[in-house]
Amino acid sequence: MRLLLTLSAALLAAQTAFAAPFSDSVLQHTEDLRHHAMISHRPWQILESLTTEVGPRLPGTEGDRRAVAWAQETLNKLGFDRVYAEPVTVPHWHRGHAEASITAPFPQPLVISALGNSIGTPTAGVEAEVVAFADLQQLKDAPEADVKGKIVFIDNKMERYRDGRGYGPVVKARGKGAVEAARKGAVAMLLRSVGTDSHRFAHTGMMRYADGITQIPAAALSNPDADQLTRMLNRPQPVRVKLQLGSEDRGPQTSYNVIAEITGSRYPDEIVLIGAHLDSWDEGTGALDDGAGVAIVTAAAKHILERGKRPQRTIRVVLFAAEEVGLVGAKAYKAAHQQELDKLYIAAEADFGAGPVYRLDSRVNDSALPMMDQVAMLLAPLGVTRGGNTSWGGPDVSILPEAGVPVAGLALDGTDYFDFHHTADDTLDKVDPQALRQSTAVYTLYAWLMANAEQPLRPIPPVE
Amino acid sequence: MRLLLTLSAALLAAQTAFAAPFSDSVLQHTEDLRHHAMISHRPWQILESLTTEVGPRLPGTEGDRRAVAWAQETLNKLGFDRVYAEPVTVPHWHRGHAEASITAPFPQPLVISALGNSIGTPTAGVEAEVVAFADLQQLKDAPEADVKGKIVFIDNKMERYRDGRGYGPVVKARGKGAVEAARKGAVAMLLRSVGTDSHRFAHTGMMRYADGITQIPAAALSNPDADQLTRMLNRPQPVRVKLQLGSEDRGPQTSYNVIAEITGSRYPDEIVLIGAHLDSWDEGTGALDDGAGVAIVTAAAKHILERGKRPQRTIRVVLFAAEEVGLVGAKAYKAAHQQELDKLYIAAEADFGAGPVYRLDSRVNDSALPMMDQVAMLLAPLGVTRGGNTSWGGPDVSILPEAGVPVAGLALDGTDYFDFHHTADDTLDKVDPQALRQSTAVYTLYAWLMANAEQPLRPIPPVE
Repeated sequence: MRLLLTLSAALLAAQTAFAAPFSDSVLQHTEDLRHHAMISHRPWQILESLTTEVGPRLPGTEGDRRAVAWAQETLNKLGFDRVYAEPVTVPHWHRGHAEASITAPFPQPLVISALGNSIGTPTAGVEAEVVAFADLQQLKDAPEADVKGKIVFIDNKMERYRDGRGYGPVVKARGKGAVEAARKGAVAMLLRSVGTDSHRFAHTGMMRYADGITQIPAAALSNPDADQLTRMLNRPQPVRVKLQLGSEDRGPQTSYNVIAEITGSRYPDEIVLIGAHLDSWDEGTGALDDGAGVAIVTAAAKHILERGKRPQRTIRVVLFAAEEVGLVGAKAYKAAHQQELDKLYIAAEADFGAGPVYRLDSRVNDSALPMMDQVAMLLAPLGVTRGGNTSWGGPDVSILPEAGVPVAGLALDGTDYFDFHHTADDTLDKVDPQALRQSTAVYTLYAWLMANAEQPLRPIPPVE
Repeated sequence: MRLLLTLSAALLAAQTAFAAPFSDSVLQHTEDLRHHAMISHRPWQILESLTTEVGPRLPGTEGDRRAVAWAQETLNKLGFDRVYAEPVTVPHWHRGHAEASITAPFPQPLVISALGNSIGTPTAGVEAEVVAFADLQQLKDAPEADVKGKIVFIDNKMERYRDGRGYGPVVKARGKGAVEAARKGAVAMLLRSVGTDSHRFAHTGMMRYADGITQIPAAALSNPDADQLTRMLNRPQPVRVKLQLGSEDRGPQTSYNVIAEITGSRYPDEIVLIGAHLDSWDEGTGALDDGAGVAIVTAAAKHILERGKRPQRTIRVVLFAAEEVGLVGAKAYKAAHQQELDKLYIAAEADFGAGPVYRLDSRVNDSALPMMDQVAMLLAPLGVTRGGNTSWGGPDVSILPEAGVPVAGLALDGTDYFDFHHTADDTLDKVDPQALRQSTAVYTLYAWLMANAEQPLRPIPPVE
């Protein structure tokens, strides 16, 4: 009841303060949608189904094919107006068996995970002395003689923040560490996991090679294993590690962006895109990354569909293929829809766990800021505050603003996200059903309001 | 300062209330020991050294041999009056590679750990339909037709308590599940991990076979994997699992109980035994189980040694071999010291993580209860309360009361212990240095007081 009163007050304030970008009937329907969403089991059911019946779904694998089939079947059963799949050529990287151990001075096994895209080692493995660097820059600054013939260990540690801003500074070493190490003659690269937990799960994720630089195998160590290695390196004896990776590139495969729509009643060719990615890393079941996002955007659209009021614009749910291996599905989507991008009213993504959502960011024309402020006020009863106007929209939609597409960011609480991100431990039990429900409610209201907004959002502020 | 005042008050009260079982100089020295222990890095240094320089130390393995060498070297360096090792014949069970997956209806890998003592599977593995039981009793009650040819899954879940009393009711299924399953013709046994966490670590631990019953392979599933299997079993399709274990018995090896003593000044042949076990399971580094115990009892004795006042009785630190595989070192100790058991004044063990210690239990003659109450009062400034007189003493010393030996239990807080117990995640980062320090302080004062107590503790109440 208190929430309802708060919402009514917010509505009143909003109506009074601004020219009305939303009609009364649109505003009234937000209450119905919110109430419906906040008691719905739908997002949980979708997530439970995806993580149980598909599980891991690395691009190009059998799991990926099953995920596409699952998505088509699920979206069709939910009764959307259109459900279709668009082919995407994706890489198929095979993890294979991964094993590592300290061989001297104190032999013991290490918990590792091959980094995505890494080559394998010879079957007998690679064994060498370890040389540690605090971060990528220290490796870049090191003399070649310190590195040549050794296994480079990059020991930068991720810090925990609600918005995940600890990720950027350390993930560079995951992407580029092997190249920088190989440049100086290293035989392999080990990385302290990009993760905030202290459990023996190594966090995988993409790494890259560079033309003309020798490709060397690369793997992440769990945080406790990185600690252990560091303790040994702090002792006088040289530390040697043996690494065996069975990873290999298995060549291109066809996957699909799977798409569902509620056709708009008034502007059917104008699109409000809400996306998530269907693929996942292979060691967990991708519950947080990005099963939760799939559940949030799918259930949000379904909430709107089943409450009977058709939106004026088309709401398009896009479940992107192969995000993890380089936004492959997103790039294919952008290319395939090039002619239609000017019809994208606004795009948003859910790819940061199950939430709750705590903030609305945007990247829209200044003239539309009062309207976005009103959207935030309408989301306030769900605990959402208004952020800024420099949103990137989320990974897959991040490449759209450069084509002029407005985006919004519904910030999911990522405080614990990197405890599980890209590990075997990303499983359904890590998802809080109530947070998932709230996040879905926020995406529902957001999509409904955007699909019925009366103002243009373009041109957007330039992307740096 | 407040602690000191509290202690002085406790001393005064104790002195007033009872005939004095401790001399003034003994009592005064407890303050010095407590102060010293509560600022000491010693237990952490010992634990860091053991877990780093030895790491996993499964009985009969190279790690076990290194642990024995480490213990002898460490105890000698600490300057104890006597350091010696007594041979123990231990089994060498080899884990080998373990792999499992759901093959139908929704293929995906499972995180498992072979149970200790399990046989392996044929190289190609065992694949069969899964039949689930809520607990061991339900399996015992099941008709043979439900079980024959299947993989039995026992799904009992451990509850969390500070004193670990959730362990007993569920661990029975680990020990006896394979026998009961095989009795009805099952081809393998899977167990929901005996653990309180929800991470993808399977908890290993001992299982047993019975004469005349077919030996079948047995493994634990992590809790999230048990959840996942349960979700599938709740769907209509039959669920099939494939299990491959490379486990095997590699025959007997020689290990050692490693022992250190401070010779008593007045009753050198009377012994206050404080024990822990040196071996560990092989997937973690045995930081909580039982590196912490090794650190606590070793550092406690060292605290007494280095503060210069010699105890009247001999304090004997026993680092038992092969506890995990069936109290093997403890049984060997008891047999080897049969003639001397009547000289054991009292025995205690630390084998439940790093603490803190919250309670003193005992099993002593009723006439000595006021003295034990006074010991508890002297430990009260460290946060310890007085428990009862039905202590079992801890795993390795639990076989001593049946020979009339008094025991004490210094109860370590085990609230989180079974999150890590017998998993790869039992590593140094899980130990709170301050808890370890407090626990060591408690064992220090306890050992000092017992070694200087003026009252007999025998005969003890009968063991049921």
